[in-house]
Amino acid sequence: MKNLYQETIVAPATIPGTGAISIVRVSGPEAFRITDAVVRLKSGSVFDSKSYTVHFAEVFADGKLLDQVLVSVFRAPHSYTGEDSVEISTHASSYIVSELIRLLIEAGARMAEPGEFTRRAFLNGKMDLTQAEAVADVISASGAAAHRVAMNQLRGGFSEELSSLRSQLLEMASLLELELDFSEEDVEFADREKLLSLLESAKEHVDRLAASFRQGNMIKNGVPVAIVGAANAGKSTLLNALVGEERAIVTDIPGTTRDTIEETLTLDGILFRFIDTAGIRESSDEVEKLGIGRTFQKISQAEIVLFLLDGSLSEFDLLNNLALLRGHVNWDGQKVFFLLNKADKLSVEAVNKNVTLINNFVSDYVNEQVVIPLSAKTGKGIEALISALTNAEKELLPNEDSTFVTNARHFEALKNASLALGNCAASLSRGIPTDLVAEDLRTALSSINAILGTDLLDPEAILQHIFKNHCIGK
Amino acid sequence: MKNLYQETIVAPATIPGTGAISIVRVSGPEAFRITDAVVRLKSGSVFDSKSYTVHFAEVFADGKLLDQVLVSVFRAPHSYTGEDSVEISTHASSYIVSELIRLLIEAGARMAEPGEFTRRAFLNGKMDLTQAEAVADVISASGAAAHRVAMNQLRGGFSEELSSLRSQLLEMASLLELELDFSEEDVEFADREKLLSLLESAKEHVDRLAASFRQGNMIKNGVPVAIVGAANAGKSTLLNALVGEERAIVTDIPGTTRDTIEETLTLDGILFRFIDTAGIRESSDEVEKLGIGRTFQKISQAEIVLFLLDGSLSEFDLLNNLALLRGHVNWDGQKVFFLLNKADKLSVEAVNKNVTLINNFVSDYVNEQVVIPLSAKTGKGIEALISALTNAEKELLPNEDSTFVTNARHFEALKNASLALGNCAASLSRGIPTDLVAEDLRTALSSINAILGTDLLDPEAILQHIFKNHCIGK
Repeated sequence: MKNLYQETIVAPATIPGTGAISIVRVSGPEAFRITDAVVRLKSGSVFDSKSYTVHFAEVFADGKLLDQVLVSVFRAPHSYTGEDSVEISTHASSYIVSELIRLLIEAGARMAEPGEFTRRAFLNGKMDLTQAEAVADVISASGAAAHRVAMNQLRGGFSEELSSLRSQLLEMASLLELELDFSEEDVEFADREKLLSLLESAKEHVDRLAASFRQGNMIKNGVPVAIVGAANAGKSTLLNALVGEERAIVTDIPGTTRDTIEETLTLDGILFRFIDTAGIRESSDEVEKLGIGRTFQKISQAEIVLFLLDGSLSEFDLLNNLALLRGHVNWDGQKVFFLLNKADKLSVEAVNKNVTLINNFVSDYVNEQVVIPLSAKTGKGIEALISALTNAEKELLPNEDSTFVTNARHFEALKNASLALGNCAASLSRGIPTDLVAEDLRTALSSINAILGTDLLDPEAILQHIFKNHCIGK
Repeated sequence: MKNLYQETIVAPATIPGTGAISIVRVSGPEAFRITDAVVRLKSGSVFDSKSYTVHFAEVFADGKLLDQVLVSVFRAPHSYTGEDSVEISTHASSYIVSELIRLLIEAGARMAEPGEFTRRAFLNGKMDLTQAEAVADVISASGAAAHRVAMNQLRGGFSEELSSLRSQLLEMASLLELELDFSEEDVEFADREKLLSLLESAKEHVDRLAASFRQGNMIKNGVPVAIVGAANAGKSTLLNALVGEERAIVTDIPGTTRDTIEETLTLDGILFRFIDTAGIRESSDEVEKLGIGRTFQKISQAEIVLFLLDGSLSEFDLLNNLALLRGHVNWDGQKVFFLLNKADKLSVEAVNKNVTLINNFVSDYVNEQVVIPLSAKTGKGIEALISALTNAEKELLPNEDSTFVTNARHFEALKNASLALGNCAASLSRGIPTDLVAEDLRTALSSINAILGTDLLDPEAILQHIFKNHCIGK
């Protein structure tokens, strides 16, 4: 493999100063020579070591032993970056790591830029762009679902889907380009009907992927859950009970939480993003009005709405509170749970009466039981709430194993591809000249290629594809 | 090597969730079998892999790919613990690491206790106790000096010194035991004069090591520097200027800092432990009196005292302030620097006048220039202070390359050994019977052995030593 880079880079692959071991990575054409200049193997040299072997070694700084280390050797192209690479395993001391990196830099390496090892892996053809992008997602995934989606992308599951899409588009493009080549002869190679049907199925595929972004985003960044209710209903206390830490300010003064506060939490392997909101009520205070406006906006962005009600309120006040929510919830698209708070202070009869009252109130919109009596203060009923949330998530994300788009860049590119394919189909139906149709198709291909990071856009590449797959015996 | 342990242990060797790579370690008789049950090597198995080789592998959890990992194989006894060991290198995701550990535990490993890998290394004879203790010091050492001392101990520098000491003691013990063996014959094998001189040189060695603890402690935990002065002289501001962060509470009210605050800082590779103290002044406030008492205590524990003076004070107040310190500083043992603060607000003449005033005041005790004009607020003069501190440290720690005791346990054991050797020498001079002299010697040996973690204390071991080195041809 030809080295794309002349420079050899070095960086810590772990955060030094914590744990037992730190890893320093070196990669590039001079990785072995530079490492040999700094570490003294017990026997032999890094340069002469076999790939995928580990060696005991000592590092000296200014004539004094810096550390006893283990050196792992990976020869190009069978390394993470595709280049000659070395991993040096030291004691997890920040002093040792910074000294070791200093020595490696003095021997000719340079400090790697953020993500440069993965960037080199991509540019050396070890992975495509979607896989390179997945590395960061795999590391930050905190729940099972987010991990699964990121790992699928890292393995190339998303790339495979895009590649098959790309093949379809390339096939269509090839047919159109052929026509253009023979345009003086007024030949129509491509079966227009078939082309149109291919286009529509490709667009459908692209749209399905683009549509998965809403769910993919939920998996990656958490299912957005708005905690809504009248001031002093106990929203911050509930959030604290859920998060298990006192980050939100909790006081007894109504209207304390003016800004929205977000808190992510993994429940049963599912990431939720809880959004505490300012209390909704009729208010003349300008600042509070602003906060309430923001609350309605947050409600509209949530997948799940937790409407917290003070269970000790009178029937009249309870109904008044419920009425506040009416125009701001999308009963078809959003899951709404009514949390009857302060249930620890109520009799069983009072709880039942309120539950019936609320269920009757919402029976116009939903026909399930959506009231959960609880006490945010004592934690009673929190279990039931968590299981309601995880069940709701399973409804929101029914098809666990399909591909989800989790990356805004991919989403944008897919939307562009969809637009281009739509234009293409419209042109085709209306008998627009082939070269304009081909132009739209190229735009769609370009978008898909941008996701993968491949650069096959020049017509030459498309022509190569023609003569590889469609040899016409010329 | 016989396995001392039946159980196979697992633990992360890095803090997951940070960096690019996480390492999970497995060690014990079943390390290979357990790892094979969890990871699927691209080719072959861990069990059949050569020592010091790395293998690409996949981990599946509940039938789904958890991660693509690298597995390093270390066969007993050539591993850190001396047991069969495996290091699994994963993406640095806390989810992956916890799942992987769960799978390894399900396959038969158990979670390692804190330090258990190193404890096994010790019990398997890979290192002695001083080396095992040094591992934590090497990792936490934040400056060059602390790192050097810890690394010397990890390499066995301290053990070597103790071993040579131990050989001397064993030789003496052997001679005495021989006498005891032949006691009925009233033979006196040991040359009493030579024995006494050996004892004294051994005690001297032990005392020298014990004395190094003061310096060793300084190297490991930082040179203690007390920042002292009248209330509102700017002590907290100075500390903040040194530390570069605002941790101490700084206000304009005199007497704010009631408790001592410590802050460690590495300057030119040297660790300093700065101790902010309550302002010293005549006070009737009980709480403040308590704080001032504590200040004097802290001064007595410091190696360096920074006495901060408000440069804008009148000559009378300045002298009054200086007088406060008089009885509380050990001018022979401690380094004292007078910091003339708020120098940015003074004319050159005023600064010079005050410098002369202070130098005259302390000329009874020291004959060097010890005044540093500075401004804690603007940072002017801080450089000069730092260079004065590092020079002072070099005076405190003149012999960089000798052995330093940094561990309180070692210090205690050395003091015990010194006491026993003293008793031994006294008994010998006074013609006390051999068996009592031998008993004291055994106590001294026991203390040294306790440091090393060896257990050669039974007379049988000493007798073995006799017949190895002193074969008398019987």
